[in-house]
Amino acid sequence: MYSRYPGFWKMLTVAVCTAFLGCLQAQELQGHVSIILLGATGDLARKYLWQGLFQLYLDEVGKGHSFSFHGAALTPLKQGQQLIDKALETLSCPQDMAPSQCTELKDQFLQLSQYRQLKTAEDYQSLGRDIEAQVQQEGLQEAGRIFYFSVPPFAYADIARNINSSCRPGPGTWLRVVLEKPFGHDHSSAQQLATELGSFFQEEEMYRVDHYLGKQAVAQILPFRDQNRKALDHLWSRHHVERVEIIMKETVDAEGRISFYEEYGVIRDILQNHLTEVLTLVAMELPHNISDPGAVLQHKLQTFQALRGLRKGSAVVGQYQAYSEQVRRELQKPDSFQSLTPTFAGVLVHIDNLRWEGVPFILMSGKALDERVGYVRVLFRNQAYCAQSERHWVADQSQCLPRQVVFYIGHGDLGSPAVLVSRNLPRTVLPSESWKEVEAQPGRHLFGRPLSDFYIYSPMRERDAYSILISHIFHGRKDSFITTENLLASWHFWTPLLDSLSRETPRHYPGGAESGHLLDFEFSGSQLSFSQQQLEQLVPKPSSAPMPSDFRVLKATYRESPLILSWPEELIAKLASDIEATAMRVVRHFGEFHLALSGGSSPVALFQQLALRHFGFPWAHTHLWLVDERCVLPTDPESNFQSLQAHLLQYIRVPYFNIHPMPVHLHRRLCAEEDQGAQLYAQEIAAQVANSSFDLLLLGMGTDGHTASLFPQSPAGLDGEQLVVLTTSPSWPHQRMSLSLPLINRAKKVAVLVIGRMKHEITMLVSRVGHEPKKWPISGVLPTSSQLVWYIDYEAFLG
Amino acid sequence: MYSRYPGFWKMLTVAVCTAFLGCLQAQELQGHVSIILLGATGDLARKYLWQGLFQLYLDEVGKGHSFSFHGAALTPLKQGQQLIDKALETLSCPQDMAPSQCTELKDQFLQLSQYRQLKTAEDYQSLGRDIEAQVQQEGLQEAGRIFYFSVPPFAYADIARNINSSCRPGPGTWLRVVLEKPFGHDHSSAQQLATELGSFFQEEEMYRVDHYLGKQAVAQILPFRDQNRKALDHLWSRHHVERVEIIMKETVDAEGRISFYEEYGVIRDILQNHLTEVLTLVAMELPHNISDPGAVLQHKLQTFQALRGLRKGSAVVGQYQAYSEQVRRELQKPDSFQSLTPTFAGVLVHIDNLRWEGVPFILMSGKALDERVGYVRVLFRNQAYCAQSERHWVADQSQCLPRQVVFYIGHGDLGSPAVLVSRNLPRTVLPSESWKEVEAQPGRHLFGRPLSDFYIYSPMRERDAYSILISHIFHGRKDSFITTENLLASWHFWTPLLDSLSRETPRHYPGGAESGHLLDFEFSGSQLSFSQQQLEQLVPKPSSAPMPSDFRVLKATYRESPLILSWPEELIAKLASDIEATAMRVVRHFGEFHLALSGGSSPVALFQQLALRHFGFPWAHTHLWLVDERCVLPTDPESNFQSLQAHLLQYIRVPYFNIHPMPVHLHRRLCAEEDQGAQLYAQEIAAQVANSSFDLLLLGMGTDGHTASLFPQSPAGLDGEQLVVLTTSPSWPHQRMSLSLPLINRAKKVAVLVIGRMKHEITMLVSRVGHEPKKWPISGVLPTSSQLVWYIDYEAFLG
Repeated sequence: MYSRYPGFWKMLTVAVCTAFLGCLQAQELQGHVSIILLGATGDLARKYLWQGLFQLYLDEVGKGHSFSFHGAALTPLKQGQQLIDKALETLSCPQDMAPSQCTELKDQFLQLSQYRQLKTAEDYQSLGRDIEAQVQQEGLQEAGRIFYFSVPPFAYADIARNINSSCRPGPGTWLRVVLEKPFGHDHSSAQQLATELGSFFQEEEMYRVDHYLGKQAVAQILPFRDQNRKALDHLWSRHHVERVEIIMKETVDAEGRISFYEEYGVIRDILQNHLTEVLTLVAMELPHNISDPGAVLQHKLQTFQALRGLRKGSAVVGQYQAYSEQVRRELQKPDSFQSLTPTFAGVLVHIDNLRWEGVPFILMSGKALDERVGYVRVLFRNQAYCAQSERHWVADQSQCLPRQVVFYIGHGDLGSPAVLVSRNLPRTVLPSESWKEVEAQPGRHLFGRPLSDFYIYSPMRERDAYSILISHIFHGRKDSFITTENLLASWHFWTPLLDSLSRETPRHYPGGAESGHLLDFEFSGSQLSFSQQQLEQLVPKPSSAPMPSDFRVLKATYRESPLILSWPEELIAKLASDIEATAMRVVRHFGEFHLALSGGSSPVALFQQLALRHFGFPWAHTHLWLVDERCVLPTDPESNFQSLQAHLLQYIRVPYFNIHPMPVHLHRRLCAEEDQGAQLYAQEIAAQVANSSFDLLLLGMGTDGHTASLFPQSPAGLDGEQLVVLTTSPSWPHQRMSLSLPLINRAKKVAVLVIGRMKHEITMLVSRVGHEPKKWPISGVLPTSSQLVWYIDYEAFLG
Repeated sequence: MYSRYPGFWKMLTVAVCTAFLGCLQAQELQGHVSIILLGATGDLARKYLWQGLFQLYLDEVGKGHSFSFHGAALTPLKQGQQLIDKALETLSCPQDMAPSQCTELKDQFLQLSQYRQLKTAEDYQSLGRDIEAQVQQEGLQEAGRIFYFSVPPFAYADIARNINSSCRPGPGTWLRVVLEKPFGHDHSSAQQLATELGSFFQEEEMYRVDHYLGKQAVAQILPFRDQNRKALDHLWSRHHVERVEIIMKETVDAEGRISFYEEYGVIRDILQNHLTEVLTLVAMELPHNISDPGAVLQHKLQTFQALRGLRKGSAVVGQYQAYSEQVRRELQKPDSFQSLTPTFAGVLVHIDNLRWEGVPFILMSGKALDERVGYVRVLFRNQAYCAQSERHWVADQSQCLPRQVVFYIGHGDLGSPAVLVSRNLPRTVLPSESWKEVEAQPGRHLFGRPLSDFYIYSPMRERDAYSILISHIFHGRKDSFITTENLLASWHFWTPLLDSLSRETPRHYPGGAESGHLLDFEFSGSQLSFSQQQLEQLVPKPSSAPMPSDFRVLKATYRESPLILSWPEELIAKLASDIEATAMRVVRHFGEFHLALSGGSSPVALFQQLALRHFGFPWAHTHLWLVDERCVLPTDPESNFQSLQAHLLQYIRVPYFNIHPMPVHLHRRLCAEEDQGAQLYAQEIAAQVANSSFDLLLLGMGTDGHTASLFPQSPAGLDGEQLVVLTTSPSWPHQRMSLSLPLINRAKKVAVLVIGRMKHEITMLVSRVGHEPKKWPISGVLPTSSQLVWYIDYEAFLG
């Protein structure tokens, strides 16, 4: 029952070859290819895959290979064959093919395609035997076998095991297995799945499909960048690009697919794969040779490495209003069930390399939106001023009109894939054999501009993504598929965000155009937020919400020193202002200001306040010192100096020689007593700071009463001659370097910042104790001839 | 002849006061004010100043002062009086004043105003005497005198001397002299004029007019910023502002004013004064109290200090085509005469402070343009993504529509002064007693948006700039005038640009709308250029101009080492690529790359190439060392490290601890032998660089054959054990620190960069000499076990 017509394959290829191209005698040398479509009766197969296989046949017939197509599923033979026959009836030929030719080729394809039930190990064994027997019987050489997994992921392992044990072709031939997403649910499940598959298949045998890579506009991104390298590559950077938008909007919702969707949501469904792939194509450094899949992969992986980690604040998520009801219905959940699965997400991605630093990459996708469209839009910065009034501007000459390159993936106002390039950009080219320039239809607009502002390129022939990918599988073009490394890099990037969002309630939106501006979002630094307040919060107008500044800053005393008491935000603002005022005064009188800063988390908000709100701060005349440091490498994220760099130094301009990190790392080791780092720092202070008396010194207070890195029950630094000391912390990293209490008390002004409910207990305790630095080092802070001010927030103070 | 009606002043004020406001008995206590308008029959006086004085009278009558107005000129009495009478006939009252009242007040004003000839010293003496006599006769107290100089600047000194010696009022009264531009032609002439005036008047007596400061929209900039401080001040910075445009376009040309214009040009006429004043108002840090003229002045001066210096590349200049012909006609120049005076200028200003760093301030003005308009436009960055298709965007909600604040100075499409604020910005307020919100006329557009996108505020009553300024002079409001410090700061800023442009041929433009895109300009970094090539240059298309890359890089040998020979641009590009390739290879194998760089001017272009074109450079793994350093303070512009910071470090991200400046400044002194800086650096190298062998070391070659800071006939560093040495340069600064020849020769790779015709002689000489480091230190560069490559440009090589 294997082939209905023994000998047909060979005969057919010869005959067709004659009819089409004249005959290549080489044809039989290229050998026979068996393609086994697993899940051949499923949705994807019926919609795209059979058509893709037929297209492959049309493209390749007569070029030297012979083919057989096996549609496989769990369904028993007869019923399965009927389903297949039905699916094959709808196959279509390209528009430019004569109907008679189409009929002939379709008949041939039907002859070569048959159904098999593949359920048990024996089924696979017999498949393997049958292919071998048939190939031998026909006197053919075997070239290779393609197994296309169009099945749910839980079935992967079984099928893979069976193929590996029973269906591998003989030596000198190839095996290719094609896998469809989902490839896991997060980094660890993806890793597990990859390990499992790796035990059956070699990396080069696996073709993981992301069908976006078969979309014509997406597939054109790298070639477009490559061909226009000279004109565009230097523009393709932070010096010229204002933003990149990678967008996939859908009008449909998830109804009918809830059992899948509820587990995945929009980020796993669209962003982790499709939009991320597109991102890497847009952002990667161009390999010298873009047809080298190894080089492309390597550059992709480098791009992943440069991605700034995502946090909860990097994304906004939404859910269309009808979703939870659909979940309750389709998954039989109780009436009270509310899903947290997002159906909309906007994510801000930053790439921390020299090409892209600071350029926002905006990824957005959602269901039940106002339009169906997919695009990548690279918007260049306007760096021109046009001397004439706007009414005189001409699209291809005015550099003041928006300049953009758009890879229009499909649907939307254009309705078909295209590459659009603003006419005021340098002239670009696309491969003339496969893309053509088209005229804009008058009166139509895109991205705020008339279509006539763009050069518009569209494919000579629109092709479905799957038929392109199937052709690439056949030709072994691995660069259109997701390697294991690539997959895991992507999950590595997305998993922390997914984890941090898992308990987040998405914003509800009505869907369609009714959503209005509810889903608009905006960024500030790397923080993303919805532009509008939630509707229910709009009732008391946003401007009437209590602002930190509406609360008075209270002044009182604490431990007989002045106390500033407020809500955190206002407290930080007050402290920053006080520091600036002191700095201004000191610089005016003495020319330079010596500021010593503590590490830890509380000062981070202060650093950011100083960096982003205090434009008049005399940084050029400020010396920055550290109060304490952890004995870790300077590149360690635990390093106080690193935190200072990340939250303050990178935003301001302090002269290199005014920055004084603690020398915890000398002679390639950390805080070794004999390297005398503490003494070195003390000398540096003595040399640069008059009387070793800092102008302002910022301290925190730990829940155990420690301050700087001076800890209870540990004598170092509490008194004595030493100005800088090595100390031991009860918590990791244990080794520290710290200014000593005597040095701290020499400062002209000391500010202690205490924030958060966690600090309430110690705040109350310390308010009552006397001078007992051995128990509570903070109680030893008593600047001899100067001022101590406590900045405490309400939660620390009142609990 | 002094007053036609003795006793009239007193009577009049009492009567009027009764008629208008009820009577204040205090009126006479405020005293008498004499206003002397010099140049009373001139253009400016007839067009604006008499009307301004009349307006002052209308505003102040009945508030306690009495007035007399003296129109003065060189014209003899009778003829002068006729001219004045004629000018006064056209005075008008505000629209809302009843005609009868207007007639009455105008009559009064005419009574108080009379002509005087002021020509000789005696004339001034008699003026002084007459005022005193008159005041005494009327039984008044004198309050003060205002002398308004509406005369050409060459007349200033004489008049000033006469006023100072004969017309100063008595003790307890004030003198105010009002000066009209031009205030000099450049910094030194302005300084001279200021010194001259300073010998006659106190600073507080001088009111220098920039009539732009009286324009209602300009005068509103600081109050608007102040009143909306909370909503706007944090947006008013580089984190949110994309650009600021300060524009004054004219349709008229200079015909009829050529004798003035030809000497000044658009930059001196408009940019140095009007646009610069506006710039400081937009950019200054807001003083705590904006009504404190001292604080405003101080903040203005701070803004001037932060302005990045202008170079030729900071500006584009143009001249309307008919201009030279007009000059030939009006100034009787020969037919061959071509003027270089610009009638159009676009200037890019950067402000190097924390608020504005990186934000382009675009100043533009010109004659014979397509429209008459003046405005300041603050455009905010788009930091939003709008989830809906554009057709659903609503102006006051969508954060994706442009957000801008416009101070519309006048004319243009609006036709009147206004403040416009995009509706998607936070709600702002203007003083409700003097500004009102108005409705946009439907269908009108401004800056690419319907007017309805803006909140529009316009003055309750439109007032001429001069009447506002005259009122401010009367009230002693010095903040609306240009102090000497302010004036000199502005000239200090503009003079280098004016000097550098003095021999530049401006681009010719036809004028009006015909100029098309010819005057559009664009910026890249701080470099400005016209967007379009000159028309005549368009014949061979721009892309066909020879590019550096069209020349082949030649490879040969020099001193038996490889030689790369090319044009400078291509040579630098090749060297940068070679360095990057080496860095990539070394980092791949060893994890870190040690690069030692020379100072001097040749490497600057290399630094910029690396900074702006080599996005893939592994900076995070690169250590930067210096080959040599000058013994100057680290902040000295002569410091090699400063140059490295300015041209490379500020663009890239090298970890703090990977940067290794030479320790030339220790213990607050420079290169003291006993501080052992050279030994310290050698130790640092030994500790961090394997075998003290740099991966790549970049050298230059001096015209005397020196390299690094190793000089001929000076033995230090040429041989011996010392790795780092102190040396003496023949040129200033003499003291240097340098890697020694033995250390240089340990490097794994040495590149020598030689550029420019000046180096031709030494290049030829060194090609022929042997190993004679004492005569030519460069000849001693012979890396023992590694590679030396010469990068020499054609000019150095071929002369």
